[in-house]
This record gives sequence, C-alpha cells and structure tokens, in this order.
Amino acid sequence: MAERLRDDRYLGAGGAGDLALELYAGVAELPILSPHGHVDVELLSRPDARLPPPGQLFVTSDHYVTRLLYAHGVPLAELGVGQEEPDDRAVWDSFTGRLDLFAGTPVALWLRETLAAVFNLDPRVDASTYDALAGRLASPEFAPRALLDRFRIETIATTDPAGSTLAEHRSLHEQGLGGRVRPTFRPDAVVALDAPGWRGALAALEEVSGREIGDYDGFVEALAERRAAFKELGATATDHSTTAVWTERMSHAEASAAFATALAGDVGESAARRFEAHMLNELARMSVDDGLVMQLHLGSLRDHDRPLAARFGPDIGGDIPVAADWTRGLRPVLEAYGAEPAFGLIAYTLDETVYSRELAPLAGHYPALRLGSPWWFHDSPNGIVRFLDRVTETAGVAKLAGFVDDARNFTAIPVRHDLWRRRCCGWLARQVEAGIVEPGDAPRLAHDLAYGLAKRAYRL
Amino acid sequence: MAERLRDDRYLGAGGAGDLALELYAGVAELPILSPHGHVDVELLSRPDARLPPPGQLFVTSDHYVTRLLYAHGVPLAELGVGQEEPDDRAVWDSFTGRLDLFAGTPVALWLRETLAAVFNLDPRVDASTYDALAGRLASPEFAPRALLDRFRIETIATTDPAGSTLAEHRSLHEQGLGGRVRPTFRPDAVVALDAPGWRGALAALEEVSGREIGDYDGFVEALAERRAAFKELGATATDHSTTAVWTERMSHAEASAAFATALAGDVGESAARRFEAHMLNELARMSVDDGLVMQLHLGSLRDHDRPLAARFGPDIGGDIPVAADWTRGLRPVLEAYGAEPAFGLIAYTLDETVYSRELAPLAGHYPALRLGSPWWFHDSPNGIVRFLDRVTETAGVAKLAGFVDDARNFTAIPVRHDLWRRRCCGWLARQVEAGIVEPGDAPRLAHDLAYGLAKRAYRL
Amino acid sequence: MAERLRDDRYLGAGGAGDLALELYAGVAELPILSPHGHVDVELLSRPDARLPPPGQLFVTSDHYVTRLLYAHGVPLAELGVGQEEPDDRAVWDSFTGRLDLFAGTPVALWLRETLAAVFNLDPRVDASTYDALAGRLASPEFAPRALLDRFRIETIATTDPAGSTLAEHRSLHEQGLGGRVRPTFRPDAVVALDAPGWRGALAALEEVSGREIGDYDGFVEALAERRAAFKELGATATDHSTTAVWTERMSHAEASAAFATALAGDVGESAARRFEAHMLNELARMSVDDGLVMQLHLGSLRDHDRPLAARFGPDIGGDIPVAADWTRGLRPVLEAYGAEPAFGLIAYTLDETVYSRELAPLAGHYPALRLGSPWWFHDSPNGIVRFLDRVTETAGVAKLAGFVDDARNFTAIPVRHDLWRRRCCGWLARQVEAGIVEPGDAPRLAHDLAYGLAKRAYRL
Repeated sequence: MAERLRDDRYLGAGGAGDLALELYAGVAELPILSPHGHVDVELLSRPDARLPPPGQLFVTSDHYVTRLLYAHGVPLAELGVGQEEPDDRAVWDSFTGRLDLFAGTPVALWLRETLAAVFNLDPRVDASTYDALAGRLASPEFAPRALLDRFRIETIATTDPAGSTLAEHRSLHEQGLGGRVRPTFRPDAVVALDAPGWRGALAALEEVSGREIGDYDGFVEALAERRAAFKELGATATDHSTTAVWTERMSHAEASAAFATALAGDVGESAARRFEAHMLNELARMSVDDGLVMQLHLGSLRDHDRPLAARFGPDIGGDIPVAADWTRGLRPVLEAYGAEPAFGLIAYTLDETVYSRELAPLAGHYPALRLGSPWWFHDSPNGIVRFLDRVTETAGVAKLAGFVDDARNFTAIPVRHDLWRRRCCGWLARQVEAGIVEPGDAPRLAHDLAYGLAKRAYRL
Repeated sequence: MAERLRDDRYLGAGGAGDLALELYAGVAELPILSPHGHVDVELLSRPDARLPPPGQLFVTSDHYVTRLLYAHGVPLAELGVGQEEPDDRAVWDSFTGRLDLFAGTPVALWLRETLAAVFNLDPRVDASTYDALAGRLASPEFAPRALLDRFRIETIATTDPAGSTLAEHRSLHEQGLGGRVRPTFRPDAVVALDAPGWRGALAALEEVSGREIGDYDGFVEALAERRAAFKELGATATDHSTTAVWTERMSHAEASAAFATALAGDVGESAARRFEAHMLNELARMSVDDGLVMQLHLGSLRDHDRPLAARFGPDIGGDIPVAADWTRGLRPVLEAYGAEPAFGLIAYTLDETVYSRELAPLAGHYPALRLGSPWWFHDSPNGIVRFLDRVTETAGVAKLAGFVDDARNFTAIPVRHDLWRRRCCGWLARQVEAGIVEPGDAPRLAHDLAYGLAKRAYRL
Repeated sequence: MAERLRDDRYLGAGGAGDLALELYAGVAELPILSPHGHVDVELLSRPDARLPPPGQLFVTSDHYVTRLLYAHGVPLAELGVGQEEPDDRAVWDSFTGRLDLFAGTPVALWLRETLAAVFNLDPRVDASTYDALAGRLASPEFAPRALLDRFRIETIATTDPAGSTLAEHRSLHEQGLGGRVRPTFRPDAVVALDAPGWRGALAALEEVSGREIGDYDGFVEALAERRAAFKELGATATDHSTTAVWTERMSHAEASAAFATALAGDVGESAARRFEAHMLNELARMSVDDGLVMQLHLGSLRDHDRPLAARFGPDIGGDIPVAADWTRGLRPVLEAYGAEPAFGLIAYTLDETVYSRELAPLAGHYPALRLGSPWWFHDSPNGIVRFLDRVTETAGVAKLAGFVDDARNFTAIPVRHDLWRRRCCGWLARQVEAGIVEPGDAPRLAHDLAYGLAKRAYRL
C-alpha cells in the first residue's frame, strides 16, 4: 500500500517537491470545514445511524459513478438506480468490474483514497473488498457520528429545501451538535414557478410556515421567516441554482402578477425565468438583512436527457453546463448590494472560461463577492490547478471562499479535502519556485486555502 | 541528425522522462489507423501513382502552410495556388525561405519530422533538399502504395461526397484493398440547400443513384442507398460539417417544403440552416439503421474572407472557428438517439472551451457520444495536452475516439500519429508522476490512445 | 535582497533553467519600446517635472491597486481617490498594511521589483520605505526625463484624445524628443455619440481643428486632419476601445443621419453602437490612407458599477470583460482592408478564450492583423504563458505585436518589460526542451518578443 499511495501524491510539484511536502504537512491535519454538501442529515441526527452498504454508498447514490457507467451502456437498473431492493454486491461488482473506464478520473482516485485512508483497506479492489467494506460499514466505528469525529469535521452543512421542517436539525441542536451540523436554506423548488414540483414545494412551505401563501408578499414573508428558522438552527448560508445567470429585479407589481399567475396555474416559461432572476435579487436583499451568505451555483442545464429524467427522476438525466454572461448577469445584484458590508456572495460556475474573464475581475472589484472552489466536473486534480492559475492573479487568494466538498458520499469527505489541500500546496510550491509567491507567504496561503478562507467566507 | 531529433522529443515530460520513453516505446511501432483524412483516393487506387513534387505536396496543397504565408503578405500565386503550371522549385523556395515564420508552429515540426523520418534527409532544409526530395518522390519506393506498407497503415479512410461514383474505391476493392482503404460518406454539399454548388452536387447524386430526386422523400432515399453503397465498399463512417451546432428536427412537412423551395430555386438562408440542422438529426437516424459512425466537425465559419474565396475558391478563404452552444445544440440528436446501442457519434470542435464545459460532460452521459481528437489548429503539441487535460477527468480516456490525422499530405501521416503518441505518453507519464493515473494503467491507456480507441470508435 | 530576488525568478522553466537564463541574458538589457501606455505627457514634456509622492504614485492613481483594496472593503477615500489633499503617507500605509491581500498577484510582484530595481530599496516594505521612496521621488535622479534614459526607453507613446492640442508633444518635438515620446490618436470620446462627455469632446475637437463640425462629413474630415497632426508629431498608431466587437459599415446616408441625430441631442443607444461599429471600419480606412497602425482594445464593459462610477467618475467603476464574437465582429473590417499592405491592425482582448479559437486563426490568415500582448488582468506571469501557449502554434511568433506595458505608473515600465522578457524566455526554454522550438531559433525569437516585434508592428 505504501508503494501505491506515495506521500507526495497529487502534489505534482516537479522540482518544488520538498516545499510542497512541507506546506502540505502544515495543513494535512487541520480540521475540516464542510459548509456545502449533500449528506443526508438523518445520518447525523440519529446516533445509531449507519451508512448504506457498499453498492448503494459508492455506486447507486453517486452520480459521478452512475453517469459514466451509463455512458458506457451499463443499464441504470444494474447499478441499483430506481430499484426497490437491488442486489448490493452485484451493484458493487458492476462498478468495480469496470474500473478501467475510470482511469484518470477523480472517481478512481477518490475510491482508492477512501478505501485506504478511511477504511484501511488495500486501495486495489479485489474479491475480498466488498465483504471487508460491508463489515466496516456495519460497525459502530463507521457510524457517521463516529466518523464526524474521526474526520475532524469541525462543521458540516446539509442542503435543505425551504419547506423542510428541520426536525433533524432541531434534534441535533438538542443533542448539542447545533453548531457542528448546520442546515442550508435552498429555496429553488419554490422559486421555479413552472417546475413540476412547484405546487408541492409551496405546500410544504405553507405547512411548515403555518400560513397560507396567497400572494407574492406572503411568499416573501414566509421565506424570510424560514430563513430566520434556519439561522436559529445554525445556518450561515443559503444556496441557489439556476441555469441562466440573471439577477434582474422585477417591479413589485410584476413579481406579484407572476406569482399570482403561477398560483392560477398558467405561468409561462419566460415569466418563470424572469421571476427566478428577480428572486435571486430579492433573496440577496434578504441576505443583507439577515447576514446569511448567498451561494450561487449557476449555469447548469438540469435534466439534459429528458427521456431519461422522465423515467428515473432528477439527478439522473444529465446536468450539463452551458455558457453564460456573468458580467451582465450579476450586474443588477452586485450594483444593488455588492458593497453592503453585511452581504456575502459566493459564486460557483461550471464554465471555466469565466474564471479569468468574468469572475476574478468581478471579485476583484465588489466587496461582497467571493469565488467558490471548482464545482462538480472541475473538482479534480487538473481542474483545481486551472482554477487557481486563472483566478488568483486577478482576485488574489484572499477573495476565494476556500473549499467545499459538495459530497453525497459521507466517507469521501476527508479524501476530497485532502486532494484539495495537496493540489493547493503543490501549486503554491510551484508559484514560490517561479518567484511569483513569496516563500514567506506560502504557509499562510496554504492554511487559508485549507481552512481560513472557508471559515471567513461562510462566517463559521 | 541524431542531435537534432532527440529520442525524447515532444514528450515534454519533465521528471517523468523515463516512464514517458518507456510508454512511448510500447506504442511507437503500432500500426496506424487513419479513419479520417483528405488523401486523394486516386493516389491509392492506381498502383503506379506518384505523389506530386515537393512544392505542390508541401506547399500548394497544404493550407496550414499557405494560410500563414499569405498572412505575411506572400501572394498566393507565388505559392502555386490557382496556377496552371507553377514553377515547383520556386514554390518550395517561397516556403522554405520563410521557415522562420513557422518557428514554434506544428508546420515546422511536421516538416522536419517528415524530412527525417519519411525521406531520410537532414531535417534542416538547405539548397540540396529540393532535389533530394523530388528524386525520392519520383521513385517507386515512395509511391503511395509502397508507403501504405512502410507506414504500417492498417486502414485509411478518404472523404467522399455523397454523389461520388466510388469508382476508385471499387477498384481498390477489386484489388483486395477494400478493407484497407475505405470511403467516408460526406453529404454536406447536398444538404446545404443554399450553397452555390448545391444543384451540381444534387445532380451528381442523381446521376450516381440513377434516379431523379424530385422531393424530400426521394432525397432521403437516395442518401440511404448511397450510404449502403459506401458501406459495401468498406465505409464505417460518415462526416458532417456545419458552422452552427444545431440538430433540431423539422416535421416531415416542413422538411419537404424546404427541399421543394430549394428545388424551385429560392430557399432563404434561415430555411437552409434549419434544414441543415434537421438533416443532422435525420442522418443520425440513418446511422442508427445502418451502423455507420457519424462524425461531426462543427463550429467552423467557412470562407471568412469572401473576397479571397471568390477569387480562389473554397479552403483558401480562411475557415475561422466560432463559439457555439453544444449543450443545447446536440440535445435533440442526443435525446433521440444518444442511448441507441447501434449509434456512434464522434464530435470534433475548434472551440477548446467546450472540451471541459460541454463535450466531456455530454460524453460522460450519453452512450453514443465519443470525443474526437483535437481538430485542425489544435492538433499541435500544446493543443493535444490541453485536450487531454480538459476531457479525461470528466469523460475518462475510454470515451475518446483516439486519433485522426486529418492529413492532406500523405507523407505527413506517420509524423502526425507519432506526435500524438509522443504527446499522449508524455502526458500519461506526468499523470502517473502526479499520482493521478495508476502506474499499472498507463501502458494500457497509451495503447488505447494510439490504437485501440480509434479501432473501437470507428468500428474498424 | 539577493536572496529574495533570485536571478532566475519568473522564468519558471523547470529543468530548462540554464537555457532560460541564457536566453534572458541576451535580451535583459535591450532598449525598451513602449508603444502603448497611459503615462501623463506632462511628466515628460517638462524637464523639471517630478513624479507624484509614493501614495499617489503607487496607490491612488493605480487602479490595479485601488480595485482590490476596494474589493476588500477599504473606502476609496482612504486611498486618496477623489480627495483634494489626501495624506499621502496614510494612503501608502493603507496599501502596504494590506499587502497580504495581494499575495500571488502581479501587483505584489511589480511593487517589490520596482522598489528593488528602480529605487534600489529593500523589496520588503517596512516603516522606512515611505520616506526613502519620497526622498528619491523628489530628487533629480528620479525625474521622469532622467528615468527615460536610465530605463533605456527608446520610444514611448502616450494616449491622447482626438481633441488634444498636443501642446506638450509639440514642446517635446521642439526639444528634440519628438521621435522618443509619441502621441497616440484615441478618438473614442468623439465616436461614442451617446456618452455623457460626447458634446464636450466634440467641442474640443472643433476648437483644436479650428472648424465647426456640423455634419458627418465635417466630422470625418476633422478626424483625418487631426490624424495628420498626430502623425507629424511622431504618432505611429491610433487606439480604439468599445465593449462590442463589431465593425460593420453603415451607408454614408445612415452614418450622416446618426451623426445629425446626435447633434440634435437625441441619439439612441442602438444607433450609437452601430455608429461606433461603423467608425471602426471608417477609421480603418483612414489607417490605410495614412499608415497609422490601428490598435483595438475591445470587449471591456466600462463602469460596471454605475453607482460607484456616478460618485467617482470613470476608471473606478470596474471595467469587466465580456465574451464577444471576434470572428464575425472583425469580418467587415478584415474583408475590406485585411490584405491592404498599408494597413496594420493590432488586437487586444480580455477574453482568453478567443486567443486560440478566433484571434490566432484570424491573424494566421489576414496579413494586416497582429496579436497584441495580454491586456490588463492577463498581463501577469501565468497570463503571459497562457497567451503564448494558445496563439503561437496557430499564428506563429512572427504574427505577434510584441509587448506593450500599458503603464500609468512610470516607474513600473522597466519592471513590466522585464517580467514579459523573463516569462517569454522561460516559455521558450521549455518549448526548446520539449523539442517544439528549435534550439537555434530560440535566441532570435527571444529578441523578437522583447524588442523586434513591437518595432515592426508599431512601425517605430
């Protein structure tokens, strides 16, 4: 195992290897801040919860894995997707029998790292891996609550719909874990007036708010109340995702009319998109009021493959990035609130071309804006370096928001942070070697990238 | 010469040089698969054919060369373009007297490699080079058919219009070379209803089909018949090129009307573009039927310099890339056929920004889609590495389509494959050194990139 | 100091360090050509002029510095912006007390280099730095005219509005410095018919032309006359900046009507943008006539933050890049004049994606077009390498326009050229090491990048 997972792996630092290792040693053991991700809160709220078995944990519920297997013609059913009681070992074998397809992708890297670092197994999958994994996953040592400590997770945020009752978070609060596990307010489902699930999401919001939402004003009030409830249970951030990058405000009359039309059941797509843009602006205004940091995950075309999405539901139909105009798209919200000291805005993009063209220049001007770490497809060894190379010269390291792991698989969290830390340290060492970064600045920058920036950006 | 062409050239592998050389040694001598290019089929169908003399071969007929000389003010006539009987030596001197202009470009690299590796000459051009080259080109050892063996070309495809008689391919078939030299079905000229050459191309299609094409249905039938004829003579692929990335289907009535309008002689540009988009969808449907792999070369604005194109014809007026929306543009064809096991689709782009933003995510979802190697301007040492860095983490190596040389100059074929193989091996070695690719996977990936992927993608 | 500023700094050449140092030694001491920048001409025309004190020189007047401090919430007033009599030392301290924010940015690099190389001070700022700097800046040895010699500036161009009297340039001419300090004709303010300052700029043009400008024809004549006046005082170039990349000609009647409407005071935004596009075409025609090289700085959305611009004026409101279509946008001007031997066109972009997709292919075809060095945000260590990597394989080094420093801070000029030279030499050495550039070509290419290309492109 020692031979396979070298100490200097992922540093990719060429001649600057010693410095990279030194920088990495200074941050490797820092606590983890995980202010954005998709871990199921129930895993954390119930002390006796266990992670699912290997097939479900590493395959069925990880769309990094299912998408690429599907792309090679493997039927989703064979991967457990949409199955009531899949044969978990068969699901695992479907994946691990095709690891060749993942060579060079972060999926392969995360898997071997997780096996070795988290499960203390040989990183090379063989016939014994499944049983060993399954055994550990069922043991108390691998209960999520135990892992929370073992992983040194200082704080972790889940992502929760606006209409969530937050029952689990309330329970965590009562168990004294309120500051450690935090909810994140994500109102997308109630904001997208034309989405199939809109009415259901609105009903949940009404239910949890204990009020009927009969018009736009009531809607906005309900959102503000829910934000307060989230905040009370430890939330420091909200999260928002739209395909378009558009934040233009409607007049109050227009917004009210659009909402009324939706309630009446016949809102059109264009009104729905305008309302979505308007609500990003309105939700920013609320952030100025309550101090919740606003995360934007923009530019993903959800459910690209509509026939597949129709059969298997969201997150399976392929979310594919599109180009967008961040410069003009964020202008309304930045002109309005970009200099408000109480406002924090963190931008995540799937379009690497806007790193240097738009996002770094914008973050290099507006006080409220910080740049989120590489998202999704770009949260990879080479993607991380492209990000750092393209944004830091214009925006400086100090305008970044650190790292979020965005993980669904709880056991992947330490591995993702470790990869980020290693890549950052390798990159820093090369910048020092080239004379761009001062040697004396590097340890501080490494610490910031690993820990400090996220702490400040997310107000933890 | 040994000093000038070092063994480790183009590997650019830094500290990973030994591994890169080792990987390269494992693939350097593999047979060549050349499933897409523009070699004149007559050179191969006639056993006694000879390549043209140096000026014509290396200058006049190579628009990589003529474009950059033109860009420095050299008159095209001086390069033989559009000339009945140019002075071939003068043409050669016009180029080689200005080699300084090509420093750092792949043209300079291909030239010195070709001189050394193919012609066994000093890679530095001097006064004796022309005669030596001319002598060799006239000799039987350098007849294309001899080179086919010497280059270890297992199979090579030409690109042929839909209305081609395929007489040369038939002859090759009769000579027992049918599986080795294959036609490719390229219907662009009959699909672009408003192109100046449309009526002529349609007439050729009618002639070869032995039928009058009086309406859209007849047109589609004729295309299907020609596809069958191509397939019979070894074709495994079709090729398509449009400026827009757009694949939306028309209704049958709309398509019929557009075709009828064109026959009547007054189709407008917008109808012509819609028909082109529709036909990409329709031709994909035919690929599902007959199994011919569909190549898309999209996003090039042909004949940018219309005054020059008016004087010298196509391929001289500058084909310049434009940005395009592949995510939305390919959606119709991918939703319709992207999961059909019989369908193979290979995408080539001139816009490097879509590698990581759109193409790799799409190929990482749709089973039918594979990513073609860097096209045209990007088929260069640094272009190849940018491509590999941007697509493999999301799509994996296994979703690539290997390498196509796209060559017009037959003698450049081995050199282009060698450059690709060297760059891939250098890149792989760096990925291994950084810990991203497992050492044990590298030889297999090198073999795939050099040979296996093209074989599978093109169904050879 | 020797420890902190290593000889091989910024070369970033990995194993090719010796060659990089050798190449750099060959160009380090070459004279400086500075054909585009924003130095105040008065600093050069008055022999007794002195540079402003440290705070004003390094902070208030440098929007690279003010923007990032503002982005961290520092009030602009604290940086001297818009202040009548700021406390210069406090301004300096506001910046240097926050140098951490600039780690990894070129601002930090330029500062330490300038302190060391220009002022012979410790590159690490401490409490003594301000006084030492202030003392030097007040001394005759640091008078701009003395620095002109010390910096080995062979020629430097200022940027001057079309309505400038050129009094200082006339004075320089009379002092025998006419060929060394040159004006640049920048008519943006009179071309943007809807800009708030248009009428004032037009009045200045009328005043200096000694003619009333009552219609479009008179406007064009006045421009042509001013161009001649600029040329007489040494100008070799013009400069133009628009947000859109659009060069479509209007008919004479349309252009006349748009101009008349503007004079009448009610031109709309869309007519103003069309007129701007038209004028780029018309000004290109004038360049064909008079041989002044045309510089295009396109694609920046000026004053993104309108509330801030309203308070503090232009250059403070954040100029943020936008994506644009250079392929179609430049087509009218390139088709019309791109092959005119008298025409020189130099393109600067803030969108790195067009380097390889559009600009290099265009420059690799049209004789008139050359590619300007990385502009603004991208004039940074990594930005320079990305530029070279993306354009040279398609356009060749010989189609570049060398380097322009674009400096406002006169003392930064040698430092910016030095950084460019170092990065180019490091990049060249790596290209040689990889076998892409021939060893014998490298010294010539280094010399061209440092000096020769700018000389030829700007016709100096």
